[in-house]
Amino acid sequence: MTEELNKTLVEEIAELLENRKFIKLRSILDEMHAEDIALLFEDFSPKELPIIFRLLSKEAAAEVFVELDSKQQEFLIGAFSDNELKEVLEELYLDDTVDIIEEMPANVVKRILKQSAPETRRNINEILKYPDDSAGSIMTIELIDLKKKWTVSQAFDYIRRTGTDKETIYTCYVRDDNRKLEGVVSVKTLLLSPVDAIIEDIMETNLISVDTYEDKEVVAKLFDKYDLLAMPVVDKENRLVGIITIDDAIDVIQDENTEDIEKMAAITPTEKPYLKTGIFETWKSRIPWLLLLMISATFTEKIIGHFQDALSACVVLTAFIPMLMGTGGNSGSQSSVAIIRGMSLHEIDLSDTLKVLWKEIGVSLICGLTLGAAAFIKIYIFDNGNITTASQDPVKIALTVSLALFATVVFAKIAGCIFPMLAKKLRVDPAVMASPFITTVVDAISLWLYFLIAQGILKL
Amino acid sequence: MTEELNKTLVEEIAELLENRKFIKLRSILDEMHAEDIALLFEDFSPKELPIIFRLLSKEAAAEVFVELDSKQQEFLIGAFSDNELKEVLEELYLDDTVDIIEEMPANVVKRILKQSAPETRRNINEILKYPDDSAGSIMTIELIDLKKKWTVSQAFDYIRRTGTDKETIYTCYVRDDNRKLEGVVSVKTLLLSPVDAIIEDIMETNLISVDTYEDKEVVAKLFDKYDLLAMPVVDKENRLVGIITIDDAIDVIQDENTEDIEKMAAITPTEKPYLKTGIFETWKSRIPWLLLLMISATFTEKIIGHFQDALSACVVLTAFIPMLMGTGGNSGSQSSVAIIRGMSLHEIDLSDTLKVLWKEIGVSLICGLTLGAAAFIKIYIFDNGNITTASQDPVKIALTVSLALFATVVFAKIAGCIFPMLAKKLRVDPAVMASPFITTVVDAISLWLYFLIAQGILKL
Repeated sequence: MTEELNKTLVEEIAELLENRKFIKLRSILDEMHAEDIALLFEDFSPKELPIIFRLLSKEAAAEVFVELDSKQQEFLIGAFSDNELKEVLEELYLDDTVDIIEEMPANVVKRILKQSAPETRRNINEILKYPDDSAGSIMTIELIDLKKKWTVSQAFDYIRRTGTDKETIYTCYVRDDNRKLEGVVSVKTLLLSPVDAIIEDIMETNLISVDTYEDKEVVAKLFDKYDLLAMPVVDKENRLVGIITIDDAIDVIQDENTEDIEKMAAITPTEKPYLKTGIFETWKSRIPWLLLLMISATFTEKIIGHFQDALSACVVLTAFIPMLMGTGGNSGSQSSVAIIRGMSLHEIDLSDTLKVLWKEIGVSLICGLTLGAAAFIKIYIFDNGNITTASQDPVKIALTVSLALFATVVFAKIAGCIFPMLAKKLRVDPAVMASPFITTVVDAISLWLYFLIAQGILKL
Repeated sequence: MTEELNKTLVEEIAELLENRKFIKLRSILDEMHAEDIALLFEDFSPKELPIIFRLLSKEAAAEVFVELDSKQQEFLIGAFSDNELKEVLEELYLDDTVDIIEEMPANVVKRILKQSAPETRRNINEILKYPDDSAGSIMTIELIDLKKKWTVSQAFDYIRRTGTDKETIYTCYVRDDNRKLEGVVSVKTLLLSPVDAIIEDIMETNLISVDTYEDKEVVAKLFDKYDLLAMPVVDKENRLVGIITIDDAIDVIQDENTEDIEKMAAITPTEKPYLKTGIFETWKSRIPWLLLLMISATFTEKIIGHFQDALSACVVLTAFIPMLMGTGGNSGSQSSVAIIRGMSLHEIDLSDTLKVLWKEIGVSLICGLTLGAAAFIKIYIFDNGNITTASQDPVKIALTVSLALFATVVFAKIAGCIFPMLAKKLRVDPAVMASPFITTVVDAISLWLYFLIAQGILKL
């Protein structure tokens, strides 16, 4: 719902709450989507939350609870009676319960486990065992499995009986007696088959499944590639242990994108949203790269130190150092970022290295020419005032800078495509090779080229 | 399927193709997923494609065709007889047909339209009218609509009769006599309701729908927020004209992420994948920003020009300029990128400005202190050799640099959070405010601070 709508609604609800008009309030909440009710909660004081929450139907309550942030969830659980907590837990899907538990402090976790049915508890502990980034950690075990000897109508009877508390019913699975995954059949297939057809004959047997320990990023890629709504998760013995649904896959896709973006900006990825991470935590995720890159700038210091005499002979050269390095950095990161993104979308792989290299060389040449020419004109015509202060021929200075700029851009773009490719080859995440790293390398090289060219042309 | 598997498969198929063992070949293809067959196609020569393609079943052929890139599609269409083309077109979903048409040259488009059924042709032209980024451009019109007076079993009969050529059957829609959207009912609800229940009584009436001209980015966000499988698209009169399915929404999510990443790297976004864009096209998408940022570096030139005397009096100061600007740039882009991403994930909005500002100030202070201290130690202890060449007290130089570094980091991070927020406020896309832009601003300011501090401490 739009921001504006939201505002008026908040006021209306606040008013109803104040005047304890609960029947009216409930009827409003009944009409709202869980996601929007969760948004509303942010506008109310903690002590009001339980009152609103208790007005929701059992199902709605659970749906809203899942959408709240962990602070609010923790607060509500604190306000719940054991019975209320039990009721909410009964309505939750197992994968959501696990997500919630992972965010809660130990004592709350204890209470949640205490209030959940023995079997649920076993399952929760089962899922909690899987590593954070694994398929197992995001799967749910509530799935529909059919017997292969059943007819379509038997399958539908079963789905009708058990479907209510399954997260998805549209993809059904077939296990053999050893719980090994044998096939999958969609409700679409069931609906479009004669009611007396046997599951075995209509089920899909060459299926896409993942191991419980598979990286969830791979899972997301498979969803994207095969346009799946759900994917079976199997253990080492190919026993079906759970399924992952598309909504969780989308969350993973977004997380992975955020991670790539953070790495490209020299930030150590944290799972938490920006506003939920403390100052110190943020510092920890940023300082290592800043330090590393600062130290590695020693190269540029050494280079300038080495050409000090040339510089003191023609101080005006210093004026163009920032422009040179800035343009070099930007050119380099344009290439590296484009290529890194291409790789993470599987549009580019190592077999394309030459294609990519040729393309970047081509682009860098025309970019270099354009920028070099622009720089020459700019310096010769507009910066003249600046330059004549030096005892040097302005044309030569302009020439030096634009040649250096050309060389820098070409080198930057080539480096920008080689480094990520190299990282991929060495099985390092290419994303860490993005702008900041490339910039540091390009800075050093461009300075060095600059001074060499200067010595050549200006005879320093 | 994995790279390796793929290789052996390619060889096997190549061999079967050579020895014209088509029956065996067909049986292999029957076992494969359309997406993987499409991948295979990349490994075969154009003239082999039609042969392989003709071995596929009608359904498989269409599914594979959709997955091919536009060059291959164009080639195949060229090789098709009118009848073959007609057959493929009949199997395609309308939204896929439209996607294909949008990539084809005029003469191919003509042929496609000529071979498709009159009604399909009307619908295609209908959808082609919608702007590129609109909901209408990615919707399909093949949906299941039920009459509200029907019973559940009548609905199922209808779905069984018409479901085969619908992209999704899991979300069904209810229109009144004026084709206005009245409600939505999921197959799950249908299955879990008594067979004699009336649609009207079980359908969901407060539904999430979008206008045909709504930005597809908004559509993707709604899918993500409400965990939808399909979303109805309505015209200005709230008449249901089509639906968008989750697989298309995921593609949009990925495109939007790519766009953000490109903007953050000062690249003008192009819809096409990296390897499919020509050198000149790539140049066009990169050069404007490079030029703009290069020109704006004039500020740094002017500043250095202004402090030339100070510099010539103590050339060693130059040595630290790259390190200062580099660290400043990195600090700034860390903040800006984190905040831009937060905003595009709707974790941060303008109402959080103060929270964000305080946080960045806090982070920048400890980052500044850490880096300043590190720089002091590094310069005083390790760079001594470098510095004593200057007629200056090394302690004072180290002090100058680390103070300047501290100031730079603090300023960079504050700028890094203020600029994106400002952009948002001014309804400019915050992503263009990322690293390159911020770096340019920070470069100028940090130089200026550096020289002021130097003059103060070194009495230049």
